[in-house]
Amino acid sequence: MPELRKDPIIGRWVIISTDRGKRPHEFVVTQPVLKKGFCPFCPGNEKSTPPEILAYRTKLSKPNTPDWKVRVVSNKFPALKIEGDLERAGDGVYDRMNGIGAHEVIIESPDHNATLSTLSTAQFEEVLWAYRDRIIDLKKDSRLRYILIFKNHGEAAGASLEHSHSQLIALPIIPKRVAEEIDGSLEYFNYKERCVICDIIRQELMQEVRLVTENEDFVAVTPYAPKAPFEVWILPKVHESNFENVQKHHFETLSRLFSEVLKRMDKVLNYPPYNFILHTTPLKDGGMQHYHWHFEIMPKLAKTAGFEWGSGFYINPTPPEDAASFLREAKV
Amino acid sequence: MPELRKDPIIGRWVIISTDRGKRPHEFVVTQPVLKKGFCPFCPGNEKSTPPEILAYRTKLSKPNTPDWKVRVVSNKFPALKIEGDLERAGDGVYDRMNGIGAHEVIIESPDHNATLSTLSTAQFEEVLWAYRDRIIDLKKDSRLRYILIFKNHGEAAGASLEHSHSQLIALPIIPKRVAEEIDGSLEYFNYKERCVICDIIRQELMQEVRLVTENEDFVAVTPYAPKAPFEVWILPKVHESNFENVQKHHFETLSRLFSEVLKRMDKVLNYPPYNFILHTTPLKDGGMQHYHWHFEIMPKLAKTAGFEWGSGFYINPTPPEDAASFLREAKV
Repeated sequence: MPELRKDPIIGRWVIISTDRGKRPHEFVVTQPVLKKGFCPFCPGNEKSTPPEILAYRTKLSKPNTPDWKVRVVSNKFPALKIEGDLERAGDGVYDRMNGIGAHEVIIESPDHNATLSTLSTAQFEEVLWAYRDRIIDLKKDSRLRYILIFKNHGEAAGASLEHSHSQLIALPIIPKRVAEEIDGSLEYFNYKERCVICDIIRQELMQEVRLVTENEDFVAVTPYAPKAPFEVWILPKVHESNFENVQKHHFETLSRLFSEVLKRMDKVLNYPPYNFILHTTPLKDGGMQHYHWHFEIMPKLAKTAGFEWGSGFYINPTPPEDAASFLREAKV
Repeated sequence: MPELRKDPIIGRWVIISTDRGKRPHEFVVTQPVLKKGFCPFCPGNEKSTPPEILAYRTKLSKPNTPDWKVRVVSNKFPALKIEGDLERAGDGVYDRMNGIGAHEVIIESPDHNATLSTLSTAQFEEVLWAYRDRIIDLKKDSRLRYILIFKNHGEAAGASLEHSHSQLIALPIIPKRVAEEIDGSLEYFNYKERCVICDIIRQELMQEVRLVTENEDFVAVTPYAPKAPFEVWILPKVHESNFENVQKHHFETLSRLFSEVLKRMDKVLNYPPYNFILHTTPLKDGGMQHYHWHFEIMPKLAKTAGFEWGSGFYINPTPPEDAASFLREAKV
């Protein structure tokens, strides 16, 4: 059973995935590489994955057979287990609980060679609907407190299979970075009676220097103090704290804007590896006036300076105003 | 002039090093590689670095000539500038200041082929004295609030020159991760009237499952909730918040233990790339009952899953008890 353990100093929880149990020689060999050849995510190979949890199918086809648009399955090597109790326990100064949760894979297209940026916006929309439907379903599990939806695109960004997919990790704790955002947003709200991201959007639309693109419902900007070069945030213009509550017609405008941003990144940065992550409200919280869901996209360009892990301090060689200008002016 | 900018949501400061000003095509080309050939850090090449700030010399040799044991120079491409005023300013919802600070390189040995783990413990001790002397000197600058001392060893860990060196970044702000540690430690202290790291040391010495090695003054353990596989912390047994206040005779026992830990890592993980970072008290704070200086060492083994940047959430495939056992049993 994997374990969740809490750092006794700063309070961050980590998963210790004992089942994977990596031994030293497994690190000593060359870094894992993108698996090529047989693809378990391709149509016809449905039996090579755990049974599907959700699929959008084009015809009245049966589960775990071809003819699907988007397919969600459990991760074959999950970081967390869905069965069992949390069994919270202390050990002297330390705290732990069982690694209960879900680890799922969202297969974004039947086409092995597609990437999110080459999908039609209609297909992109299906992917976003799958995110939403999984959140709605997992919310029913009272042991869970947060759902992380993220994507590792390209080997350098941590992808281990080529076929385009996102991942979902449902957790019995709230990840530190999200908790910090919620706390920081609440502090701002208590002081100003306004949502900080609503204020950011107003300022970015006025100044335009960090604006990448916008449409009727969403805006894409480079953040004022980015961790990494060419980081982009996608923000809904209307205040909403919970991604799963997005209006139906906003899925279309979101997929259109998201796709455009990825195309601009591909153009300017020559198809970079990237990660993105959805930041939304914890499961047990209702709507929040002070929190505003959004996507954060980070192309994987610079080598991670490991000291940044130890300091929480980042050096960014590209001003976000320059990055926004390059992305804005790209012909796509 | 580089800029320090504050994230308006979570309050993290980042350096935007405008002078480096990377353009897209600089990212598109292959990742920077370790420079080979001419070495500016080798004896005889002293003129290829900025003038030395500090050097421990074996004879009555002149500055910026050979015959030194450890040499400290400004980084040739500094992330921060030492001249100027902070000029704190707001821009709507955002806050910035000038990127004032120091960025120095500690050349750890005249021997181009040495690494920290192959240095004699006497030479290792000189490196630690250089860290201490630079902190003492930079403390005089009232604009500065924190000194980060860290090392990137090996290309995968971010080193761009082969010749063994550490780095120092002096900042007018306190890095987020350090502030979190200080806040967390204070909270613990307020509750228990004890230092959390003192409690950790007591428990680790009793349980021994995460103990890597110890001597009369220091202990090396794998942390209970590590961010990364084979992460190791080196902790002084006697409570002390400020690294620069370490007792003279502790420099010897620290260098002995630190060297042993690196040798154990080399043995078990086959000479891994690694990062380490010194966590000590901010410059303007005197001694703290609740904070305890230490080194954190992280071998660079796993590929960085970029989503961890966006979530503050880590999945570690190796239980720290297993890592400690491998390191403890290595023959060195």
